[in-house]
Amino acid sequence: MSMHPQKNIKYFWEDLPVGRTLEIGSTTVDRDEVIAFAGKYDPQPFHLDEEAAAKSMFGKLSASGWHTCSMAMALMVRGFLHESSSLGSPGLESLKWLKPVYPGDTLTLRQRITESRPMKSRPDVGLTRTLWEMFNQHGEQVLLMDGYGMFRRRTPAAVDEQSADCA
Amino acid sequence: MSMHPQKNIKYFWEDLPVGRTLEIGSTTVDRDEVIAFAGKYDPQPFHLDEEAAAKSMFGKLSASGWHTCSMAMALMVRGFLHESSSLGSPGLESLKWLKPVYPGDTLTLRQRITESRPMKSRPDVGLTRTLWEMFNQHGEQVLLMDGYGMFRRRTPAAVDEQSADCA
Repeated sequence: MSMHPQKNIKYFWEDLPVGRTLEIGSTTVDRDEVIAFAGKYDPQPFHLDEEAAAKSMFGKLSASGWHTCSMAMALMVRGFLHESSSLGSPGLESLKWLKPVYPGDTLTLRQRITESRPMKSRPDVGLTRTLWEMFNQHGEQVLLMDGYGMFRRRTPAAVDEQSADCA
Repeated sequence: MSMHPQKNIKYFWEDLPVGRTLEIGSTTVDRDEVIAFAGKYDPQPFHLDEEAAAKSMFGKLSASGWHTCSMAMALMVRGFLHESSSLGSPGLESLKWLKPVYPGDTLTLRQRITESRPMKSRPDVGLTRTLWEMFNQHGEQVLLMDGYGMFRRRTPAAVDEQSADCA
């Protein structure tokens, strides 16, 4: 288990400027995991049962949207956050499930920083706004998330920067 | 496994007018499940390890935000969607993790319909916008989601209703 030691941090807030795009990684969707996740957290028939799924608008067994988000998070932690000074997220401005996700799909996650500002209340922390975009093996986008992250700064804000900040 | 049979449907689109509030149910957060979820989908130290969590801003072991969403979904499926004509969701306008969620917390979910309109493209389907609000045992709100759901209609739209619809 990574203990997120300070010495391994590659990305502080200052290292995440607007426009920065990072390829985060890929994962293949496992059928048993789709069913196990749905059984616990989203037991709708089209996420659990091939026959019910065939009759649904998805056409075949598909992953819960929350499973898709969770797979994106797993990629994000292992491919980025573990090397960052992340302090978590207050939430998202938008979440879109754009296409069904099926067992056997290979999903690839990319993130792009769209806003960045110091936090007024905490001189040692900055806020970023990030787009998470996940694509399947056909190049179709399956997920869009637009949310905020808090990161410790490499260098805390100076007093005059804080007073000028309107975050 | 429920097969979502037509005959058991209690809530069609017409049964979900603006302003309708439903108490969905409660669940207690299990420590082993917090760690199991985090190990798979959000392996950040403060979701996995008591000692690391004690040093984090959460103060003690807390659930992944995605686990919190998934627990809300589990309540929503078992307490509402299974009895509805739900066809899934295209996404959310907003998702806020307002307070940490800890093992042992009892979470209670409520939903409120805030918008409702026919779908122009599908006369047999209506769209609702819904607030999901989840509270802990202290009455503190831990989660807010503001999203869309598609539901089959009890009675498909008439032609003149469709042409007047600007959804």
